[in-house]
Amino acid sequence: MISALFFDVFGTLVDWRSSVAREAKTLLAPLGHQLDGTAFADAWRAEYQPSMEEVRSGKRGYVRLDDLHRENLERILPRFGLDKLSAETREALNRIWHRLDAWRDVPAGMRRLYVKYRLAPVSNGNISIMVDLARHNGFFWDTVLGAEIARAYKPSPEAYLASARALDLEPSSCMMVAAHSSDLAAAAKCGLKTAHVARPGEHGPGTGETKPTVKVDFAASDMGELAGMMGT
Amino acid sequence: MISALFFDVFGTLVDWRSSVAREAKTLLAPLGHQLDGTAFADAWRAEYQPSMEEVRSGKRGYVRLDDLHRENLERILPRFGLDKLSAETREALNRIWHRLDAWRDVPAGMRRLYVKYRLAPVSNGNISIMVDLARHNGFFWDTVLGAEIARAYKPSPEAYLASARALDLEPSSCMMVAAHSSDLAAAAKCGLKTAHVARPGEHGPGTGETKPTVKVDFAASDMGELAGMMGT
Repeated sequence: MISALFFDVFGTLVDWRSSVAREAKTLLAPLGHQLDGTAFADAWRAEYQPSMEEVRSGKRGYVRLDDLHRENLERILPRFGLDKLSAETREALNRIWHRLDAWRDVPAGMRRLYVKYRLAPVSNGNISIMVDLARHNGFFWDTVLGAEIARAYKPSPEAYLASARALDLEPSSCMMVAAHSSDLAAAAKCGLKTAHVARPGEHGPGTGETKPTVKVDFAASDMGELAGMMGT
Repeated sequence: MISALFFDVFGTLVDWRSSVAREAKTLLAPLGHQLDGTAFADAWRAEYQPSMEEVRSGKRGYVRLDDLHRENLERILPRFGLDKLSAETREALNRIWHRLDAWRDVPAGMRRLYVKYRLAPVSNGNISIMVDLARHNGFFWDTVLGAEIARAYKPSPEAYLASARALDLEPSSCMMVAAHSSDLAAAAKCGLKTAHVARPGEHGPGTGETKPTVKVDFAASDMGELAGMMGT
């Protein structure tokens, strides 16, 4: 009996790559910078896992993703000839992660799922990013769970387990929804149910998982199909 | 410029007294117990502040309100001749706090306020209570803040300050909404804006604050009036 759906967000619900590419280009153009937006988004995102790994490994304490994003931004700016940007512009770039566009099927699918299930992000993004993304895209969370309340980054077990505990639920009453098999494998190991949503274009055409590479409870092509599978 | 509204919940948004009285009576009647529901609700609630004070004073670490409620229940049961109740019945009683009814003006007022402001409980209740109360009464949180994410009970400053930080907001961009002047005074001391909502019947007719006893930014007779004052 599934009571709550836990969502991966970056890649699964929102198209971070197109959004960061477009918004960064738009933000820098008036300052005279001709940015390769897609290369910039990819370079920024490439720093994501290594920066969280420092926290996961215990090398440093928990730091919010907004702060890791900002550190990672500093690291890549010189590669794009952007080492002279003002602090305000750097901060404005960092805030792009708060207004990423959802994949087209997401808002309607989430509204259907909301009728029957508790919905919460179990993302590596911090609370304010998750609040802003739901507002930006017009869907509702029951509450924000995941990294900031667990003070642990996925795929560390604590990120999933603390999220289930916060809702007074057994892990088996929660289902992780993600476009990434590695996330689902870690969630399943903690006892959660799992659903895969295909996002074949996450890193550009033909780059994402068209189907899960691990055993899952549900596999859907988009959030509308998942909503149907879940009886909503 | 106010971006987020922080809500006290017990007493301000929900009528805990009538709900606990009615639900406890209903739950125990089939077991042959003739309960004075109101006396029971009052006795249970009377243990609330002393139990949190142990955490606030540092005498014990943070414990979720569900657990304090359960400990407090054990304490009062003998007074009502209920020391033989099963563990299941005790747990069922404790869950009443997850389905308290909102005051009549709340759902519509909250839906109006949602259009313009981030809404979050900054309550001493834990995350699962807050999620369940919003579902039970048909309104939305952007996320649950307050005691569980701060690991501190109001009126400790950290309960307010950690909640503002979680939304990346200065305290002055957040407004605490409560029926209790003591809560508002503590919030104001942390730099938050404040709004008082009168709940004259919280502990029975004529017992609650009809107006604030401290200086506040807004004072309203119900959530609909507050929504109007806030331009929604």
